[in-house]
Amino acid sequence: MSSPRNIVEDIVRRAKKASFIMAKANESAKNRALEIIAQNLVAKHKEIVRANSVDISNARKKKLSSAMIDRLRLNKERIEEMAETIMDIVNLPDPVGEITRIWKRPNGLLVGKMRIPIGVIGIIYESRPNVTSDAAALCIKSGNAVVLRGGSEAINTNMVIASIIKSSMKMAGLPEDGVQVVPTTDREAVLHILTLEDYIDLIIPRGGEGLIKFVVENSRIPVVKHYKGVCHIYVDEYADMNKAVNITVNAKVQRPSVCNAVETLLVHEKIARKFLPIVGKELKKHGVEIRGCRRTAGILKGIKRASEDDWYAEYLDMILAVKVVRSIEEAIEHIETYGSSHTESIVTENYTNAMKFLTEVNSSSVMVNASTRFSDGNQYGLGAEMGISTTKLHAYGPMGLEGLTIEKFIVFGQGQIRE
Amino acid sequence: MSSPRNIVEDIVRRAKKASFIMAKANESAKNRALEIIAQNLVAKHKEIVRANSVDISNARKKKLSSAMIDRLRLNKERIEEMAETIMDIVNLPDPVGEITRIWKRPNGLLVGKMRIPIGVIGIIYESRPNVTSDAAALCIKSGNAVVLRGGSEAINTNMVIASIIKSSMKMAGLPEDGVQVVPTTDREAVLHILTLEDYIDLIIPRGGEGLIKFVVENSRIPVVKHYKGVCHIYVDEYADMNKAVNITVNAKVQRPSVCNAVETLLVHEKIARKFLPIVGKELKKHGVEIRGCRRTAGILKGIKRASEDDWYAEYLDMILAVKVVRSIEEAIEHIETYGSSHTESIVTENYTNAMKFLTEVNSSSVMVNASTRFSDGNQYGLGAEMGISTTKLHAYGPMGLEGLTIEKFIVFGQGQIRE
Repeated sequence: MSSPRNIVEDIVRRAKKASFIMAKANESAKNRALEIIAQNLVAKHKEIVRANSVDISNARKKKLSSAMIDRLRLNKERIEEMAETIMDIVNLPDPVGEITRIWKRPNGLLVGKMRIPIGVIGIIYESRPNVTSDAAALCIKSGNAVVLRGGSEAINTNMVIASIIKSSMKMAGLPEDGVQVVPTTDREAVLHILTLEDYIDLIIPRGGEGLIKFVVENSRIPVVKHYKGVCHIYVDEYADMNKAVNITVNAKVQRPSVCNAVETLLVHEKIARKFLPIVGKELKKHGVEIRGCRRTAGILKGIKRASEDDWYAEYLDMILAVKVVRSIEEAIEHIETYGSSHTESIVTENYTNAMKFLTEVNSSSVMVNASTRFSDGNQYGLGAEMGISTTKLHAYGPMGLEGLTIEKFIVFGQGQIRE
Repeated sequence: MSSPRNIVEDIVRRAKKASFIMAKANESAKNRALEIIAQNLVAKHKEIVRANSVDISNARKKKLSSAMIDRLRLNKERIEEMAETIMDIVNLPDPVGEITRIWKRPNGLLVGKMRIPIGVIGIIYESRPNVTSDAAALCIKSGNAVVLRGGSEAINTNMVIASIIKSSMKMAGLPEDGVQVVPTTDREAVLHILTLEDYIDLIIPRGGEGLIKFVVENSRIPVVKHYKGVCHIYVDEYADMNKAVNITVNAKVQRPSVCNAVETLLVHEKIARKFLPIVGKELKKHGVEIRGCRRTAGILKGIKRASEDDWYAEYLDMILAVKVVRSIEEAIEHIETYGSSHTESIVTENYTNAMKFLTEVNSSSVMVNASTRFSDGNQYGLGAEMGISTTKLHAYGPMGLEGLTIEKFIVFGQGQIRE
C-alpha cells in the first residue's frame, strides 16, 4: 500500500505534467470544460448530496458545532449556486496570452510582457466544499493545474466533486490530472505537500488565522495569504456629514461578518462633536456597540471604553471601535500601527487630504468617499476572486484570474546579437 | 551584551519603521540621497579600501581562492563604478505612485491600481561588496527599506559602505534606518532574520544554488529566487542559416560565464546536416567543446557524446550541449523537461512556429531570432536589475525597480455605499 507521502507525490507530479497542457489550452476548450463541469455537478447532485450526508453524519458524531455543520452541508440549491459561479467564470475574459506592454529598444528588438499561468497552484482550505469547485474553476480558466486539500470533515463530498470535475475535464479534452484532490486527510501529507517546491508554484491557504500561520511556517513554496481585515474609515475635518454617516453605517452593518466590514472609525477632532452624536445614533438604531477612546467617551456618554486590544480587533460583529484623532497624519499613523493592510477609506471633500490619504496609506485597497464593503473582486469588476491578499507580493487585494497569472518577457528580434 | 538575535531584531524593527517614511519620500529626495551616496563613496574611497584590505588579509589567512579574493577586492576604480551604477539609478524613473490602470464601475466608482513599495526587503548575498551599494540604491529609489546581509568575508568593507550610505541618507533628510547592514556574521542571526515575517516583506538571495536553497528551506518570508540559467536555442527547420550561426555563437561565446549564455542547442533534423557542420566549425574556432546526442555525433565526427546530465547542465563555460530533434514539439518538450525557466530563443523565418514557440514556452524570457544574451534588465531598458527571477511569482525574469513594487487598489468614490 502507498504511504500518504507517496500518494501526495504522485498527485503533485501528475499535476505538474498536466500544467504544461493546461497552459497551452485555448479559451474555448477551457470554457467548454467549465460548462460541462457545471452541467455535471447539477446532473449528479444526488451523488454529491449522498457523499455529503456521510460527512455530515461523521461531523455529528465528532460533535462539530451546528455552524460548522451548516457550512459543510450541500443541497440541490447550493450545488446549483456552485454551477452558477462556474458559469460566471466562463464569462470572464481569459487572461492567458495577453500582451500587456511592448516597447522597442534602440537595436530594434521589440520587448514585451505576456501573461502566462503560474503553473501548479495548491489550495489548502477548511470546511466549505464549494471552494473545491470555485477554486478549480478559477484555476482551469487561468490555465493552471490545481492541487486541492480541503478540510478532513468534507473529504467524502470533495472526492465526489473532484471525480465529477475530472471526468468533465476528460470529456472536454483537457487533462483530468489538471485538477487533483488530495485523497487523504493525513496531516503528514499536508506537511509533505508544502515541501514539494519543484512541483507546486504557489500555495493559497483559505481559512482561519491558525491554518494560514501553519501553512506559512511549514511551506517552502511561496504563500499568498490573507490574515485578517481590520478596516478603517477616517472621517476628515472636511467630510460631508451625510456621506460620512452613510458610509460608516453601510460599512459596519450591511454585512458585519466579512473581512471588508469596517472595524475602527477614526474621526478628526474638529468634526467629532458634530459627527459622533449623529453617527452614534444611527449605529445604535442598528444595534452596533461602540467602544471609544477617552475623547469619544466624552462625547458619546455611556459607551464602553476601548482598550489597546480593540484597535487590533477584527470583530466581524456589530461592534465598532472609535477614536478621535488630531490630524490626518495621526489617522494614517494609527492605520500603519494597528491596520491589517486590507482596506481603508477617507471621507473628505478636501482634495489635498483625499490625495494624501490615497497616496500615503499603503493598504491593499485605499478609498475616497466610498464604503469599505466595495473591496471585493466582483465589486471591482474582476469577477469571482480566489481571496484577498494582504501579502505585499505578487497580488495585493482582491485576487481574480489575473492574480493567478504571471508575466513572462517576450522578445521579437530580427537576428540581433549582443555586441 | 546583546545577542545576535536581539541585534537582528532591533535592526529589522528599525527598518520597518523607516519603511513608512521611505514609502512617502518623493523622487527628488530619493535622488538627492543617491547623489550624496555616490559622491561620498568616491570621496571616502580610502576609508573603504582600508576596511577592504582587512577583509582581504583575513581571506588570505582563511586560504580563500584567488577568484574569491578578486571578487572581494575594492579599489578606487571599482568604487567609482559603484558610484556610476548609483547615478544610473538616479536617472531611472521612480515607479512609486504611478497609476497603471483605472476603470469605471457601473455605480460610478473609479477603481484603479497604483504602484507602491513592497516595504522592507532583505537581501542575502555572497562576497561581492558592490552588491551592498547596488541593492541599497535600487531599494532607496523604489521607496523600500532594506536589510543587507552580505558574506562574512566582506563584513568590514560592508560595514564601512553601510555607514557612508547611512550618513548620506541623513544628509538628504531620509531615515538612516532605511538601510541596515547586519553587523554580525553569526549564522544563527541569518536564520533568525528569515523568521521575522512581521517586519520583512521579501527576501532576495543573491549567490550560488547552495545559498538559495538554504534561504528557501528556512524562510517564512516570501523568497524571489534565481536558481540557474540553462538557456536553450532552438534552430527551427525554417531558420535563416546566417542568423542561426550568429545567434548561437554570440549566445555561447560572447560571455560564457553568465546565466543568460546558451547551454543547450536544439536543432531540427531537417536542417541539422546543413547547419551543424557550419556552426560546429565556428564554435571550434572559438574553442567551444560540443557534447552531442547520437545524431549530432553522426554529423560532427569526433565530438564528445552528451550524457543525461548534460541536458541539465549550466556549464557557465565554453561547452555546448547539442541535440537533434524531430519537431518543434520535441524541442518545447525538451525545454519543459530540462530547462530552468530562464531564457530560450527560437531561430526561424516561419511565422506559425515563431508564435507557437513564443506562446507555448513559458520561461521567463522567450525570444524569436535574438541572442539569449539580451535577457537582462539593462538590455530590456529596465535599467539596473536586482537579479533575474525564475520563480513564477511576483516578478519573473529581470527584476528592476518595478519588480520592487506592488500595486494597491485605489478607489475614487462620490459617497457610494453597497446595496
